[in-house]
This record gives sequence, structure tokens and C-alpha cells, in this order.
Amino acid sequence: MKIILIGASGTIGKGVLEVLSVDHEIIKVGHDSGDFQVDISVKKSIEKLFQDVGSFDAVICAAGRARFGSLEDQPDEDYVLALTNKLMGQVNLVRVGLKYINDNGSFSLTSGMLSQHPSPRSASVSMVNGGVESFVRAAALGMKRGIRVNAVSPVLVQETAAAQGMGSAGVPANKIALAYKESVEGKRNGEVLNGSDFA
Amino acid sequence: MKIILIGASGTIGKGVLEVLSVDHEIIKVGHDSGDFQVDISVKKSIEKLFQDVGSFDAVICAAGRARFGSLEDQPDEDYVLALTNKLMGQVNLVRVGLKYINDNGSFSLTSGMLSQHPSPRSASVSMVNGGVESFVRAAALGMKRGIRVNAVSPVLVQETAAAQGMGSAGVPANKIALAYKESVEGKRNGEVLNGSDFA
Repeated sequence: MKIILIGASGTIGKGVLEVLSVDHEIIKVGHDSGDFQVDISVKKSIEKLFQDVGSFDAVICAAGRARFGSLEDQPDEDYVLALTNKLMGQVNLVRVGLKYINDNGSFSLTSGMLSQHPSPRSASVSMVNGGVESFVRAAALGMKRGIRVNAVSPVLVQETAAAQGMGSAGVPANKIALAYKESVEGKRNGEVLNGSDFA
Repeated sequence: MKIILIGASGTIGKGVLEVLSVDHEIIKVGHDSGDFQVDISVKKSIEKLFQDVGSFDAVICAAGRARFGSLEDQPDEDYVLALTNKLMGQVNLVRVGLKYINDNGSFSLTSGMLSQHPSPRSASVSMVNGGVESFVRAAALGMKRGIRVNAVSPVLVQETAAAQGMGSAGVPANKIALAYKESVEGKRNGEVLNGSDFA
């Protein structure tokens, strides 16, 4: 399959690239790096990406920005970032990508465990993760031409945890990548796949 | 308690008013009607509402606009409406209201069963319902002064169903109101209360 991987240079993206490049052609996409560039918060940038890439079978998004902050003090800008980037950026990858993706293609978005298991400073992050998950469940029901959509909810990524001095906690990115592999290669539709369930 | 009820003239709002006015002082708020008016999609309008009302113990929001549409054809404007009104409108009631609400006060927002049980045309509605629910779970962890926040996920409202020719299907609004009553009077925090579980 020809797979567009957005966020290819990120921690999870590298794991996905390692695992899925064995059997598939991966188009690496980043904000500033990769084979193509995109700003997912700008719908026209997404449109241009799909036009430039041409025919493809799958989109994996391992990108999406959102910031932590206290309920009382987090600025409006953080909510705007989370909504326009991690939430609507990913939603628009599906809405726009539908016009370009091949029959029986798939979209694999990224949510996060904070939707169900929040932390005291995760209000805006949890909000958009929950939005991604509920969007995926609904969008799956509106798909045609055999197209599917799922979200992967990554657990703590070992590489990220190690960089933050948390030792060997978490799951390696190339194991979390197996959830994205399942979303792409399997038959699932409208599911939220736990990043550790396929390791 | 002194309770600000936003959406007091709506179907669910009327049920909440009937049930909660027995024991509490209800400040009725609407977009165009009620004791005070607010446009929840405008943060300054929310700020003005709380300043005008003065001291209060609870906010119930039984308002929040979002539209149905097909995944392929729903316009950007519908996503903007859902995000700015039903999602950020309610989120901002909490963020702004925190500055004004009395100790041990509560916020009761409204999500909807489409977050977990979507329909083929509910992508934008499901998305924001899921966002409200995950926000509530996270925001509850960031609360101080004994303040609480919950969401009620109403089931099919009998009055709405009847108006749409669905006979006696659904749960009467004054029964769904009992979930809001539980959110206000009980000790729950960070929960999504099913609108039929307290009937």
C-alpha cells in the first residue's frame, strides 16, 4: 500500500515508519521535514498535500499539537491550538482526504489516553482527544467505497518517558506502531485502538 | 441554592426548571429570553452574565448548538458552530464561571449519547459531545474550593420525539432533569451522567 505518514519524524512516527515500511511504501510528511510538508491546522495546506501526493491507500496521522495548562490559568490560545491543530487538523485530514483516497483506504488518527484518564492540567488536551475519538466513531458510519477510519490512543511512549528521566517506563514506539498497523491492514472501522493492545 | 439555568426555555431546560425550582432559586437564562441573556459562543457575553447575576452556587447549561450533516458534504461552518457553541461555549462557562461561583458550587454541562452511540450524520455533533465529556473528566481534577463539574448525557427526550412523530418514545424532560438534580445536589465530580439513570 501507499501510505501517507504525517508526523513521520516524531517519536511515534519513527516507530510507525520502522514497522510499516517493511511491507508498504511510506510517504513521509512533516511540518518542516519529510517528502512533503503540511500544516494540518490549515485546510488548504491539507488539500495541497493530497493533490501533490496523488493516489494513496492510507493516511496515518501521528501529529497534532496541544498544550497542558491549569484549568484556571490556561490561555485561550491553548484551546485554539488544541482545537485547530490536534482536533480539526485530524478531522480535516479525513474530510478532505475522502475526496482523494483510494477505494478501501483507511485513515488512522491519534487521540490519547488523557481522553479517558485525565490529569489535573490536561483539560484542553483531554477535550480534543475525546473529540477525536467520538468523531472517529461517527465518521466510520458515514464512510463509502470501503473506506475506514480509526484512532490510536497511544499509551506512555518509552522513548518520551526516557527523555523525561522516567527510566524504562512506557511502551516502545515501534510496539505502539503495531496498533497503527492493525488499523491500516485490518478490517476495523470506527474503533479507538489502545496503543499497547497490539504490542 | 441559587442556580443559573442556561437554556431555560428549551425542552430539557423546562424540565430542569420544573424539578429544581421546587427547592432552589433558579435564574433563567436564554439567548433571547429569560431573566438574563447570554450568547455562550462569545466569552465576553459569558463574563457579563456572571457579573450581572452576582453570587451563585450552580450553573446548569441545557443549551449548546450543533448541526447534523453528512461526512462528505457538511460545511466548515457547521464544525465552527459545534466547536464555538456546544463545545467551547460550555467549556468557557466553566473557565469563566470559576472566578465567580461560590465555594462548593457546581457546573452541569450537557453532552449527548451521540458521543458514544453515533449516527451516520452526527460526525460534528459526536465530536463536540465527546469533547465536552473528556473536558469534564479532566476539569474535575483541576477544581479548587470544593467546586465540581459534571456532564449530563441526555437520552432521547420524549417531548422532542413526540414533536417528530415518534409517539411516546424517549424519556420525559422532567425525568432527564433528575440527572441534572443529582449533579447539582450530590457529591459527584467529573462524571458523565446518563439522562435516564436517575429517572
